[in-house]
Amino acid sequence: MARCYNFCAGPATLPQAVLETARDEMVDYQGSGMSIMESSHRGKQYSAVHEEAEANVRELMGVSDEYAVLFLQGGASTQFAYIPINLLGAGQTADYTNSGAWAAKAIKEAKLIGNVNVAADCGKEIPTRVPTAEELQLTDGAAYLHITSNETISGAQWKTFPTVAAPLVADMSSDILSRPIDVNQFGLIYAGLQKNLGPSGAALVIIRKDLAERVPANTPTMFKYKTHIEQGSMFNTPPCFSIYILNLVTRWLKGQGLENLFAQNAAKAATLYAAIDAGDFYRGTAVCECRSDMNVTWRLPSEELEATFIKQADAEGFKGLKGHRSVGGIRASIYNAFPPEGVDALVTFMKDFEARNG
Amino acid sequence: MARCYNFCAGPATLPQAVLETARDEMVDYQGSGMSIMESSHRGKQYSAVHEEAEANVRELMGVSDEYAVLFLQGGASTQFAYIPINLLGAGQTADYTNSGAWAAKAIKEAKLIGNVNVAADCGKEIPTRVPTAEELQLTDGAAYLHITSNETISGAQWKTFPTVAAPLVADMSSDILSRPIDVNQFGLIYAGLQKNLGPSGAALVIIRKDLAERVPANTPTMFKYKTHIEQGSMFNTPPCFSIYILNLVTRWLKGQGLENLFAQNAAKAATLYAAIDAGDFYRGTAVCECRSDMNVTWRLPSEELEATFIKQADAEGFKGLKGHRSVGGIRASIYNAFPPEGVDALVTFMKDFEARNG
Repeated sequence: MARCYNFCAGPATLPQAVLETARDEMVDYQGSGMSIMESSHRGKQYSAVHEEAEANVRELMGVSDEYAVLFLQGGASTQFAYIPINLLGAGQTADYTNSGAWAAKAIKEAKLIGNVNVAADCGKEIPTRVPTAEELQLTDGAAYLHITSNETISGAQWKTFPTVAAPLVADMSSDILSRPIDVNQFGLIYAGLQKNLGPSGAALVIIRKDLAERVPANTPTMFKYKTHIEQGSMFNTPPCFSIYILNLVTRWLKGQGLENLFAQNAAKAATLYAAIDAGDFYRGTAVCECRSDMNVTWRLPSEELEATFIKQADAEGFKGLKGHRSVGGIRASIYNAFPPEGVDALVTFMKDFEARNG
Repeated sequence: MARCYNFCAGPATLPQAVLETARDEMVDYQGSGMSIMESSHRGKQYSAVHEEAEANVRELMGVSDEYAVLFLQGGASTQFAYIPINLLGAGQTADYTNSGAWAAKAIKEAKLIGNVNVAADCGKEIPTRVPTAEELQLTDGAAYLHITSNETISGAQWKTFPTVAAPLVADMSSDILSRPIDVNQFGLIYAGLQKNLGPSGAALVIIRKDLAERVPANTPTMFKYKTHIEQGSMFNTPPCFSIYILNLVTRWLKGQGLENLFAQNAAKAATLYAAIDAGDFYRGTAVCECRSDMNVTWRLPSEELEATFIKQADAEGFKGLKGHRSVGGIRASIYNAFPPEGVDALVTFMKDFEARNG
């Protein structure tokens, strides 16, 4: 069995040990006589998975009882609507920062629900970056401030988070659990699973419980965080298999040790940026102080060379290096489960490619 | 490997061949060097799965180009809101039939969005049943008529569908693709996958495309059927693994032959109802003409005997026979993938149990 180096931005590479466990348990889950996919979501097998996944997320991220940990469906894109529906009262204003394509989507949806102030806008700047705390034009009494902690497409990342009066809401889809954060600095954190945490089909939401009380009474039941808090993410049938894989990934994260993993993530990114900066052939897309540790983006001297680079890399087993179709270039997504030796191998390939084409 | 007989109401039993394929392809999907869970949703491996799943649903159900086939997240419970948001214009009224717990949930959510007329209400009757076409009190110019084709909890099922002027909308979560229907009789059909079609985590929606044009412009993008029609259910990352399993299940359905499968479903249910009707010990919950072929519900002479029945059955490998916690009694869910020999074995157990306790 040959595993490739999978640089896809999401869905993305998972720990091989997780896949092997999923394979071994697929037809008969722990002697229950059925797959976990066939198991009642109210039964003891799945309940244990669901509870352990929540407990592991709480332990790994240091989530206090003041917060709920939810597993919801619809991806981060559904959260773009849920957040203003639940948190943005009539007559209030929500502050949003625009740092790129994903922030812009969050802003677009919030504007359909209520008043939005774009507190800073560098979404279309090249080189790409996120705003600084100093440039934020905040609203007095804002319902919340929304940021996108890592822009998957542009490869720009907040390195420290702004301290503001309003609850801080963060889309962490592409860097959750990749570095130490203090959850208490946030009102709400959300992330699609399919980058650092598991397969697609579920989103993790960590919400300070008092914020869920703001929701208008006539909101559809599924759209209320309050519903899912009260029902432990079991108001309706959850996406059981995605949560089962999340649980295996959280076990793997605990086994790695977070400090080791965070250091490894930083080292992987540093290795790749060093290769980019080694000469003039490769050119990083993001400003240095905003360079993402998760999605490393760069250009080559021409689009023709970029196409050749992607094609030759693919042939050598480096998959998914093509930049997002909206921006082009090269993107290497190196999430938690991406192995350091894959980065080293890519750097070797990059040097060879430059020697042949530089 | 010992597989049990899994009578769970959903998540529910899947074809063993599907699980074995998922197991074999888990770590390296068809030589791609990655799991289908790790594969980009825009890449060729997953795209082929997504397209085949849609094509198979179209072929199996005879869905014309006038309809879109969508794979969405959030289960049928999210559709309870999406349907009135998309189809129930301001000042219009939607007709709903109340046939039990699931219909009541659909009604509750629709009332949060717009005007609802309950066209017939037998939701709390015992023995359980669905309304007759004759008793429907319909609204002139109704936006649509909503029915629940099979009530999973009560075990009552529409055997023929009412012919009405308004578009007919049906929650088919627990009987989709279990019997022949004419899709052209419906404006919209929806179903969570986790009973007849696959694992939890995705819902199938079949919608006449013109109905999707009714949606107000300021609706959040994810809540619009129009979005998902235009983007082929790829507006955001879909629940790829659930759709992958759906695709395997649709292949299995095609391999079975629908006519064989439909006949087998009817025969399984007939066998079980015959056992219930054989004496006075067991008593069916639904009126005879509404008895579900998917969820067979019955009572024993006492709740104590029911508890003993469930416990002894469980010990002999008949899993998930406990009726829904809201109604009690016994429920055997015998969806497409439930094997006929499991029904025969249960009938033998029932006879033995009666002989010992009758």
